[in-house]
Formats: sequence, C-alpha cells, structure tokens
Amino acid sequence: MVYHVVESQQFDPETLQYLFKRADELRETPELCLKGKILTSLFYESSTRTRLSFESAMIRLGGMVIGTENAREFSSVAKGESLEDSVRVISSYCDVIVLRHDEDGAAKRAAEACDMVPIINGGDGKGQHPTQALLDVYTIYREFGKLDNLKMAMVGDLANGRTVRSLCYLLGKFDDIKIIFVSPDHLKMKEDIRDYLDKKRIIFREEEDLNKVLSEVDVVYMTRIQRERMSDKDYEKAKGKFIINVGNFHLIRKDARIFHPLPHVEEIDLPINIENNDKRVAYFRQAENGLYVRMALLDFVINSN
Amino acid sequence: MVYHVVESQQFDPETLQYLFKRADELRETPELCLKGKILTSLFYESSTRTRLSFESAMIRLGGMVIGTENAREFSSVAKGESLEDSVRVISSYCDVIVLRHDEDGAAKRAAEACDMVPIINGGDGKGQHPTQALLDVYTIYREFGKLDNLKMAMVGDLANGRTVRSLCYLLGKFDDIKIIFVSPDHLKMKEDIRDYLDKKRIIFREEEDLNKVLSEVDVVYMTRIQRERMSDKDYEKAKGKFIINVGNFHLIRKDARIFHPLPHVEEIDLPINIENNDKRVAYFRQAENGLYVRMALLDFVINSN
Amino acid sequence: MVYHVVESQQFDPETLQYLFKRADELRETPELCLKGKILTSLFYESSTRTRLSFESAMIRLGGMVIGTENAREFSSVAKGESLEDSVRVISSYCDVIVLRHDEDGAAKRAAEACDMVPIINGGDGKGQHPTQALLDVYTIYREFGKLDNLKMAMVGDLANGRTVRSLCYLLGKFDDIKIIFVSPDHLKMKEDIRDYLDKKRIIFREEEDLNKVLSEVDVVYMTRIQRERMSDKDYEKAKGKFIINVGNFHLIRKDARIFHPLPHVEEIDLPINIENNDKRVAYFRQAENGLYVRMALLDFVINSN
Repeated sequence: MVYHVVESQQFDPETLQYLFKRADELRETPELCLKGKILTSLFYESSTRTRLSFESAMIRLGGMVIGTENAREFSSVAKGESLEDSVRVISSYCDVIVLRHDEDGAAKRAAEACDMVPIINGGDGKGQHPTQALLDVYTIYREFGKLDNLKMAMVGDLANGRTVRSLCYLLGKFDDIKIIFVSPDHLKMKEDIRDYLDKKRIIFREEEDLNKVLSEVDVVYMTRIQRERMSDKDYEKAKGKFIINVGNFHLIRKDARIFHPLPHVEEIDLPINIENNDKRVAYFRQAENGLYVRMALLDFVINSN
Repeated sequence: MVYHVVESQQFDPETLQYLFKRADELRETPELCLKGKILTSLFYESSTRTRLSFESAMIRLGGMVIGTENAREFSSVAKGESLEDSVRVISSYCDVIVLRHDEDGAAKRAAEACDMVPIINGGDGKGQHPTQALLDVYTIYREFGKLDNLKMAMVGDLANGRTVRSLCYLLGKFDDIKIIFVSPDHLKMKEDIRDYLDKKRIIFREEEDLNKVLSEVDVVYMTRIQRERMSDKDYEKAKGKFIINVGNFHLIRKDARIFHPLPHVEEIDLPINIENNDKRVAYFRQAENGLYVRMALLDFVINSN
Repeated sequence: MVYHVVESQQFDPETLQYLFKRADELRETPELCLKGKILTSLFYESSTRTRLSFESAMIRLGGMVIGTENAREFSSVAKGESLEDSVRVISSYCDVIVLRHDEDGAAKRAAEACDMVPIINGGDGKGQHPTQALLDVYTIYREFGKLDNLKMAMVGDLANGRTVRSLCYLLGKFDDIKIIFVSPDHLKMKEDIRDYLDKKRIIFREEEDLNKVLSEVDVVYMTRIQRERMSDKDYEKAKGKFIINVGNFHLIRKDARIFHPLPHVEEIDLPINIENNDKRVAYFRQAENGLYVRMALLDFVINSN
C-alpha cells in the first residue's frame, strides 16, 4: 500500500511521535537511506521555500531530484492533460512526487490516480499544507518538549491561511490545547475548523486585540495578511493591525515563542539583534525544522512501501 | 567521433535491436554506467515529460543533471547569441546535451557546431522527435515481440504531428509494415513522408472514417489535434472527429494496442477501469518505455565515444 | 569565519595564485572533495551560463545542487520578503549559496545577513561579477603564464560592463599592467574605476579607434554593447563601431589573444575556421576556464570553513 500525504489530520499521534523522533535522529546523524531514489517536484504554483526544503531533504538522505518549478505554464497541462494523467506518467520516472497545486483537493485527486509512488501534498489551493503543519508541531515538540497542555494565539489572516487550518487539524489530536484566534472580523477562522475543534473539545476563543492576549500564551503564531487573496479594501482594513514590534514584544512571556510560517513582512518588525539573539524568536528555527521533518517523512513514505 | 541523435532515420535496424535489448537489460538491472557524467537539459520550449524522462534516465544510471526549462527566455539567447555558440560553451560543462527547440533543424545545426559531446534532439519545431519514435518502436517490440509484419492506423493531426512523422521514418526500416493514415482532409500526412514511404515500399492508404479501420489494425496510434499549431477554423473542423471511447472501443481487436504519445485530451475518452485493466490500452506503458529506451540511448551515445 | 565572495578586489595575489593552481589541479584530476555538500543557485535574474557553470563545477566535485532560475518571480520575494530573510532561511538547506541579483550591492547585503554558509556573488546589478573577473585573470595566467607586464585593450560598452569593472579591480593587484579603454564617448569607463587605477598606479589611456590599438596589445578584451541598459539613441551611436572581423583580425599580434565574456553578437564576426583553429581566439577556452576556477573557488569557500 502506497502511503500518500494528503492532509494533516491523517497523522495519528503515534505516527507524529515516530516522525519527530526520526527527524531528531536524522538531524544528528544523516543516513543515506534514500540512495538510488528519485523525488519529482511537481509544482503548479511557486513555492521556492517548500520546494528547496524538500529537495535538500531528499539529497541529504542520498536521494536525487528532478522536477519543474512551474508545471502549469510549461507542462502538458497547457495542452489540456488532466492532473491524474500527468501524475500517472510522471510516477513511472520516480519514487515519490511532491505536488504543489493551486486548486483545493488537487492532492487528493492525484493520490487517487496514483498507486505506484507516494504523493506528498506540498500545498493545494486554500486547502491544506500538511508538511507545514508537521513542522509547526515538530517545532512545538522541540521548543517545549511536549505536544499538550499549551495555549496558542493564531494571529492574522485566518480566513485564507492554509497553514493555520492544517495546524488546527493536527492540534485536535492532542490534549489540553487552548487556542485564541486573533484576526480582523472579515478574516476570521472559518466555520469548518471551528466545528472540528468543538468536536475535538479543543477550547478556543476569538479576539481582535493582539496586545491583550500576548502575555497569556505559550505560542504566538503570526501569519501574513495574504494580499493576493483578497480585495484591496479588505487588505486596507486588515493591514498593520496585528504587528509584533519593539512596542509589544516585551508583553510576550520569556518562556513563550513566536512562530511564523514565513515569509514574514510588516507583521513582524523586530530589530536584527532581537531576531538573532532572543530565544522567543523561533521562526528561523521553525523553518530549519522543516528540513528535518521532511527528511523523516520522505524516509517514512518511501521506505515503508 | 561523437554520435549525435538528430533524426529517427539515422538508426539502422541493428542499432535499434541493440538499443531495445539494452533497454530491456537496464529495466531488469539498472547499472551505474554513467557515474560521474553530466547531462544538460537545454530546453528552448517546454516539454516537461520529455525532460523529466531524460533526467530520470540519466540519474538512474548514476549520472547527474543540470539544465534550463526555458532557455529562450532566460539564457544569453535573449542577448542575441547564436544556438551554435550556446551549445559550444555549454558542451564544456557536461557530457551530453538534450536539446529541445522550436525551430525545425535546430538539432542538426547544434550537432554540426559541437564536436565535444553528443547532442540528442528532444524535439525541434515541426521537424523531428527521434526519441519519441524510438520509444514508439520499442513499445511495438515489447508488445508484439517483433518489428515487422504489422498494420498500423495513425490517427488525428498528421500534418502537424512530429511524432507520427518521426515514426514513419523509422517504420520505413522494417518489412511488411502497412499504414493507414486517418485524418481530416486539411490535416493529412505531408507529401515528404508519403514519398519516403513509397520509396521504402511501405504500403499505406488514407481514410477519413476511424471506425471503419479499427478492426483491421494491430496498432491504433492516436494523436492530439494540435490546436496551438492551427487556425480556430481548422481546429473546429477537426475537433472531436477522431475519438476512441466506449462507443467504438469494442471494434479494436483483443490482440491490438492503442498507442498515444501523450498528453491525450478528448481524443481518448475511456473510463478509468478500462484504462487501468484492459491490455489494449498501451499508452501508459509506452510512456514508461521512454524511460528505458532513453537509458539505453544515453549509455550508447556517452559510453561509445 | 565564513568566507563570502562579494567583490573581485577582496582577493589578494596569494589567494589568486592558490586558486589558479588549485584550478589547474582539479582540471587534471577531479576530486570528490564536496561530496555530501549542497549548493543553492539563487538567481533573481537569469544567467544560464553562470548558473550552469557553477552547477557543473559543484557536481564535478561530488556535490549536489538545488535552486531556482527566477527567484524574483517565483519565490516568497513576490510576497514581500527581504533578501536577508530569504538567504537566512535558505542557508539552513545548503552549504553554499550562489546569488545572482539585479540590484547593486545585493551580494554584500546577503553576505552580511548570513553567517551560516558562504555567499558567492554571481553578479549583482551593474556592480560586480567577481567570478567572471577570476576566470578572466585565470585565462591570462593560462594563456601567458604570468599575471604582470601585460598591455590590454578593453573594448565596447565600458560604462555598463560589469565584467570589465570587476576585471580592473583585479588587475590593480598586479605589476606593469597597461590598459587602453576603447569605447564611444558616451560609454566610457566610469570615474570610480579610473580613480582606482590611478591610485594603484596602473597606466591607462582612452581611445576611440579600435584598429589603432590592435597591434599594440597582448589582450583584446571585447564586450557587447548592452542594448538592454541604454536608450535606443545611445545604442545606435555605439552599434557596429567596435568590431573584430576579417578586416582587422590580421592587425592582432600572433601572440596576442582575444577575450570576450560571452555571449558575443556582432562585435565579433569571424569565420568558424578562424574561431576553431586560430589560437588568438581565446574566448571559448576562457568560458571553459570558468568551470575550473569555480571548482577551485567552491572547494576553497566550503572546505576552508
């Protein structure tokens, strides 16, 4: 059975624990456990960071990479081929496909068409970005040594943010998680996620004042207002309202952490000496963690087949 | 002497037999016979599938890949450099160049300028696509166990189809081949190919009714109407006239095969259970065969130097 | 301490001698001294040749490559991320970054933000292209067996030519160098370089007649009129004025050499038999030298950390 990675909620806590321990192992002692294996980066929209992180992970384990940065424009897609057919053909050239797509549910469709090699969802539309959620939770595990009994503020564009959605699905697996959603009224977390959290008995509330919650939480999860996904008017209403800077940084507890999926723009505006030296700034470590958790994941999906 | 691959008719039957046997060998037992060698993908127009297939072939034999997906837009070509100079410089970085170009005859020009490393034509304009022809014939060899005494229908846009042209040149090398060209009147196979087949004493005829010929042939070679290469009016006249679907699939003999260079769009409209389970559907195997025949070819042109 | 490569004047003569000897060694006997190391090509504007040369160099030493051809369009830059942040994150995926950027000083900014892995400037704006200068001087070393006591004509668009600027900075390190700048009046070498050469006591003069100087010099360094960097009017004034062709090629001394950073267009218009057989034509060897000097440089910056 091929193990596809389609959505973050497919991981049970045991698999997560396994992946995180494996990521720790591979961080300490890289193994050439993917020697002779080939990864295809099949990217229908750009995501340089996600792509480079997967490709570096593959290579560090002894594997090789082929791929395309802009499958939409350049592939046979332009000639009208279905995603399913593209994936079927490409699967005969490689051992795993990382798929990035601009349509919700693309990863699921691709996985259903492909019984030869695992598909890993590298982000599909507004849907999911499960490996981002994995690295977020792996970062919690690294920074706090535990995955439960935490209070987290998720801040910014919660309506369009794929990463916070995937993260909520994962957090639903753990105990004693409390979430505060901080967003402008027109960019609130959507109902499907709120219903899911209710069902999982995760306590959450919604706020509009960031400074009011900063001192309460273990994690401040900042996100970018995704200008490209909203009207100019909606952007103007949201812009600059939720910022971490020297004016409110001191409100964050010494043992708390700032996360961000990156890239960040104005929503984090801290001087370089704080970014480099204050351990509350966790987002560069978070990005680096992506490399190790993807190494663990690639090993898992390829070698457990 | 560097062995360039410019056009399908350069292969004699002995070389083809050698390549197909070598492809079979490498399919069974991959060898690292290209360790330390570098392939450059020099693509002036996109062809994700051809490129990934070559790159996977190179890597599976222990080689490495560098390249560009869009040489036209991004290289020194934009500054006015000749193809000949580009190839001359790039040849000092690698051991083989796969060239895809939008101009007829580009591969020949490149090969004449380059006496350092082999050039492989990955498709040039409406001219040739010799490795597609190689994989087509290799697929005949795999599916039928022979390369002669076959009747083949070539269907669709025969005027613009590079693959059917290259295939005809190769089929001219074998005995007892019969071809039926099925196309709308305005997209008929061009005179140069018809003259070539006459000279080679290959029997062919032209038809406009696909269903009439389906039960006669061993291979139904379907092609896409290449909308991007004709006027809207010509496209409307051709569109939807030559289709394989559940309405006529049963007309195809049980021991016959459907080929397609892919990507296919509406000209093949079969349910997924037929595509996955009926052995007459050969086009996904055909695509996969491209990997193995390109492995054999890369080994041949690099290691026979 | 990480050794970044930002500008050509950072190299002292001893380092240059070391690099050139190492380049000669690696040309003779490639070593797998970068096994397990990863290079990222981070290209914000295209330069296929520079990129492929670095990537081939990395691979020939046993290393691996990831990267992007068009970071500007496709990366998180489009979402507003700073270059500094991009480099910080990407540095956790690799062991060296080759940066190509369209803004002057970008390499310096990147190097200052990155204390994890070396940054190599692959050309930034009109600023610098230090590895081009390295390969130019390495070619002098290969062709003449010395780096001093030479007279060189630099010809063409000296105002916009990044390569001639970087080369002047390097030549300032050596003894008995004489330079003749040959350009139209509106594309003269800028004052900063002229001041630098004065300070270094390099003798130079300016001319407008190419034929007058051809017989005097050891090296004729031709450059392209960079149409894309000037007005149409300025281009028309410069176009076609400084050409090497059969009409003046005989004026060049038998022991002299023609250099060109390539791509060349009309400014060199020699028949192919001269290009292939007359040893005065050094520019294809010069391009090839780029491979070996980049091998030496990659080994130096990665393995001396």
